[in-house]
Amino acid sequence: MEFTLDATSNKARACTIKTAHSTIQTPVFMPVGTLGTIKALDMQDVIDTLGAEIILANTYHTYLRPGDKTIAKMGKLHGFSTYPKSFLTDSGGFQAFSLSDISKPKEDGIEFRSHIDGSKHFFTPKKVIDIQHNLGSDIMMILDDLVALPATKERIKLSIERTTEWAKDSIEYFRTKQKEGIGVDQNIFAIIQGGIDKEMRTKSATELCALDYDGFAIGGLSVGELNNEMYDTVEHTTQYMPEDKPRYLMGVGTPEDLIENIERGVDMFDCVMPTRNARNGTLFTSFGKLNIKGAKFKEDPSPIDAECECPTCKRYSRAYINHLFRSREITYFRLATLHNLYYYLNLMKQAREAILQDRYTEFKKEFYAKRSK
Amino acid sequence: MEFTLDATSNKARACTIKTAHSTIQTPVFMPVGTLGTIKALDMQDVIDTLGAEIILANTYHTYLRPGDKTIAKMGKLHGFSTYPKSFLTDSGGFQAFSLSDISKPKEDGIEFRSHIDGSKHFFTPKKVIDIQHNLGSDIMMILDDLVALPATKERIKLSIERTTEWAKDSIEYFRTKQKEGIGVDQNIFAIIQGGIDKEMRTKSATELCALDYDGFAIGGLSVGELNNEMYDTVEHTTQYMPEDKPRYLMGVGTPEDLIENIERGVDMFDCVMPTRNARNGTLFTSFGKLNIKGAKFKEDPSPIDAECECPTCKRYSRAYINHLFRSREITYFRLATLHNLYYYLNLMKQAREAILQDRYTEFKKEFYAKRSK
Repeated sequence: MEFTLDATSNKARACTIKTAHSTIQTPVFMPVGTLGTIKALDMQDVIDTLGAEIILANTYHTYLRPGDKTIAKMGKLHGFSTYPKSFLTDSGGFQAFSLSDISKPKEDGIEFRSHIDGSKHFFTPKKVIDIQHNLGSDIMMILDDLVALPATKERIKLSIERTTEWAKDSIEYFRTKQKEGIGVDQNIFAIIQGGIDKEMRTKSATELCALDYDGFAIGGLSVGELNNEMYDTVEHTTQYMPEDKPRYLMGVGTPEDLIENIERGVDMFDCVMPTRNARNGTLFTSFGKLNIKGAKFKEDPSPIDAECECPTCKRYSRAYINHLFRSREITYFRLATLHNLYYYLNLMKQAREAILQDRYTEFKKEFYAKRSK
Repeated sequence: MEFTLDATSNKARACTIKTAHSTIQTPVFMPVGTLGTIKALDMQDVIDTLGAEIILANTYHTYLRPGDKTIAKMGKLHGFSTYPKSFLTDSGGFQAFSLSDISKPKEDGIEFRSHIDGSKHFFTPKKVIDIQHNLGSDIMMILDDLVALPATKERIKLSIERTTEWAKDSIEYFRTKQKEGIGVDQNIFAIIQGGIDKEMRTKSATELCALDYDGFAIGGLSVGELNNEMYDTVEHTTQYMPEDKPRYLMGVGTPEDLIENIERGVDMFDCVMPTRNARNGTLFTSFGKLNIKGAKFKEDPSPIDAECECPTCKRYSRAYINHLFRSREITYFRLATLHNLYYYLNLMKQAREAILQDRYTEFKKEFYAKRSK
């Protein structure tokens, strides 16, 4: 992976990341393609319409169905899904922790039962790397020890320590495998934990960033804390992260969250929000959110967002989209998902442009001004 | 509507129909777009990928939701849906009869309750024309009196007589409205009934074809009769239908049904089969049907149909489509629907080519030969 810091505007960064499969310009939002497909979209949509250079797939889900070995046989994630650009895969730890009926963090890994058939599985730091070798993702994430909040300071401290231990094992295993010719084109990121406790974040960041990772993520946020607590934690944490490696804030968030965290030095984001909200009727626009199911849209001939260049806005009226939503037409899901992701990806392009011109602060002001109209 | 009979191959016909919105070459299969959208597809798919020149929308459904008056305000079906080619709308009678909780055929129309909210409605021959004026379809169908089978000969006779009476009222009302400037660019088809009783079919066809309709449909088939009974009824009925007007067999059918009925002189078809079956996992190919959920496809790298040029077959493996189906990914529905409709529309193109070359019999043999491999 090649990393270049192209420009900064105060703390906001515009970077270029080259993987074996694509060139990613940051700030970047990675659409979530849990099972090797962005829900309701086709890879042609993702490539041609969205122009996405990187998407995320979930290790937990693909491991269970169709299975990482099947995916490996079908040409890994790229061959199986036909998406030729970059994949980032998470470690599966978060889903094992949150989706599974039974999940036990242990000294050496996480034991869980499948949410599909109840079968028993055990994820260790090495096991999730093996799975991600099968998936062939361009960026893999290590297993971390997650803590249900609220938690005692002792439990958080244990989590940090265990995450660092696992991170040491993970990087050693990953680099050894690379020397054996496995995962040579793959990259690996560690995940900084510590909740909203600044002391814990400092400890976690310092310990992990001393290790030979290709990039670093901030995990364990957007789990119910206040927005300002999230922003403060990110601002605090990024100062302990290297300037010459990508910074990824996991599972965040709203357009406002992205704008705020870019300002605090984050390069990469992922979140189910644009795709999940689309399916529930919430559409993002340059003027804020709108709920397309509203009766006021029934005979509204205007597009979802008059400033949007997505195929949905260029072709259809709010009236038609409202009708599709209310009639539960499958067509609705794709049109709405296309719009929301187009909005997110376009927002990232605009943010990058502003950073390159060193006018990120003004850009942020304009972003909020439109929303308060 | 301009009609040209371009060529025949025995009884099989290749025609050209020009409406105000498109030029339709027959034999033609009309995808069903119940609510003003082909389920799981976007109009861009229908125009660019399928190249469909005519689709069907349902009067019953659009009347109830979003309402024909709303559609009229939003630019009729063409403006509302953005599909710029031809629409055929049915009369709504069949759905009022089959979907409604309570439905009563009466002397002057059909009383029914909405399947959505139970509200009471009454469809008369004039009322369904008024609705279809609001919808702005290129071809509208008249209200006919449907009979639940099995029925006594008396009830079938009453149905035929009532259908003829309604047809007389309908054409008079439609032509009068045209003189008033309403529905000038629209066309209207009558529907021949009579079950599989040849005497009744002769009577119905003779009476209706004497009236000033733009085309004629054969209704009341594909309702549980044997295939040969359907084919015999069609073969019998087409001889009473004018050569210089389109012939439309309603609600039929499988690829085999299309091939057989083209041979018997039918020009136009519609059916939910390719779209509904796609959603259930049944895919049509040049070698017959396949059920994509089969475990044998889990690691099958070949496309659904190696001879198919549809975007699904050009891009994805059976393994990936099997995975999407088994994971209930929304993406599956569009990819499968695109494939099935592409198959149907391409089959019609091939049939036309064979008729133009006066080799329809050989074409039919080749069609069956591939399926028996």
